[in-house]
Amino acid sequence: MSQKGLLIVISGPSGAGKGTLCKALLERNNDIKLSISCTTRQPREREVHGKNYFFITHEEFQEMIKRNEFLEHAEVYGNLYGTPKSYVEQSLNGGSDVILEIDIQGALKVKENYPEGVFIFIMPPSMEELKNRIIKRGSETEKSLLTRFNSAFKEINYVSNYNYVVINDVVSEAVKKIESIITAEKCRVDRMKKSGMLLQEVGLNE
Amino acid sequence: MSQKGLLIVISGPSGAGKGTLCKALLERNNDIKLSISCTTRQPREREVHGKNYFFITHEEFQEMIKRNEFLEHAEVYGNLYGTPKSYVEQSLNGGSDVILEIDIQGALKVKENYPEGVFIFIMPPSMEELKNRIIKRGSETEKSLLTRFNSAFKEINYVSNYNYVVINDVVSEAVKKIESIITAEKCRVDRMKKSGMLLQEVGLNE
Repeated sequence: MSQKGLLIVISGPSGAGKGTLCKALLERNNDIKLSISCTTRQPREREVHGKNYFFITHEEFQEMIKRNEFLEHAEVYGNLYGTPKSYVEQSLNGGSDVILEIDIQGALKVKENYPEGVFIFIMPPSMEELKNRIIKRGSETEKSLLTRFNSAFKEINYVSNYNYVVINDVVSEAVKKIESIITAEKCRVDRMKKSGMLLQEVGLNE
Repeated sequence: MSQKGLLIVISGPSGAGKGTLCKALLERNNDIKLSISCTTRQPREREVHGKNYFFITHEEFQEMIKRNEFLEHAEVYGNLYGTPKSYVEQSLNGGSDVILEIDIQGALKVKENYPEGVFIFIMPPSMEELKNRIIKRGSETEKSLLTRFNSAFKEINYVSNYNYVVINDVVSEAVKKIESIITAEKCRVDRMKKSGMLLQEVGLNE
């Protein structure tokens, strides 16, 4: 029996650098799979269908909701986002760890459906830095920037729903912390008990 | 305000390799301090007073018990072992992590007094391997060997009282796992909440 994979939920306020961290994490760990979300929003520059997101229509999205094919789905800034169940479940059952990069609303819903996930809140080093990052992205009007900033500020209160918080100051250090969290979670006694690994590990069930 | 240090309790059955792991861990991490226990047992070959243990008399030990100077103390195989409080508390309050290498009885008592410690159960790769290691040590008569082996077998049931289990198969890998556990524990939301670090980290209390 191989140990079931971990669902690692990388979440946090907009502009905290979730995407950068996930990219670096995946580059260093070939065995970790990335969960790919469906969305109805328009692709940003350089975003690729089937890699960053599955860009689908509202109609397609509604059909998938009807067929109960999402681990979670939510509306954010007028667009629909959803995590297709099948890919995640197959990967976890096959023993692979899966990274899910997701906003806070989505993470909270995933936690309802899959509480044994590892929920990591990515925090910008300071709110000032968060504002700078949102401005630098340069894809926002002034009004939507303000909306996003206020939203991010409120969202930080949700950190208490998570297992871990990683401050994204230096990317390489933040990635190492996430790697350590994954390693440590696999050593947790309560996780081993649930999966029946404990007796097997010491050879008591041979 | 610097974050309070972690008390990392490295424990497990006799022969699991706790000592080897702690030595390697300390060599790689100069900032971690080792808690030194008092004992009334005779020093083994190469054991140094003030480094491996404080070797003290029964009378001295009893005096320390009376003065409530132990974090825990217990009798094992007819000898007294105890962890002096003062050194541990001073180090933790100063922000240093402290490693406590201790048998299972001792670890359970430390957990009563200091539940916020990180309790790591070191497991031999298999019970067969455990027996081999006890034999190789060569310092046991056949009867005391049997006593120790039976005791170790029973002790494995105590793993459920611990936070983590690390299988000590390859020492360097086991050490890396312990390092990951320490890193991950410092990212835990519930630990940050307790120490009031969370608001400080995001600059919301400036």
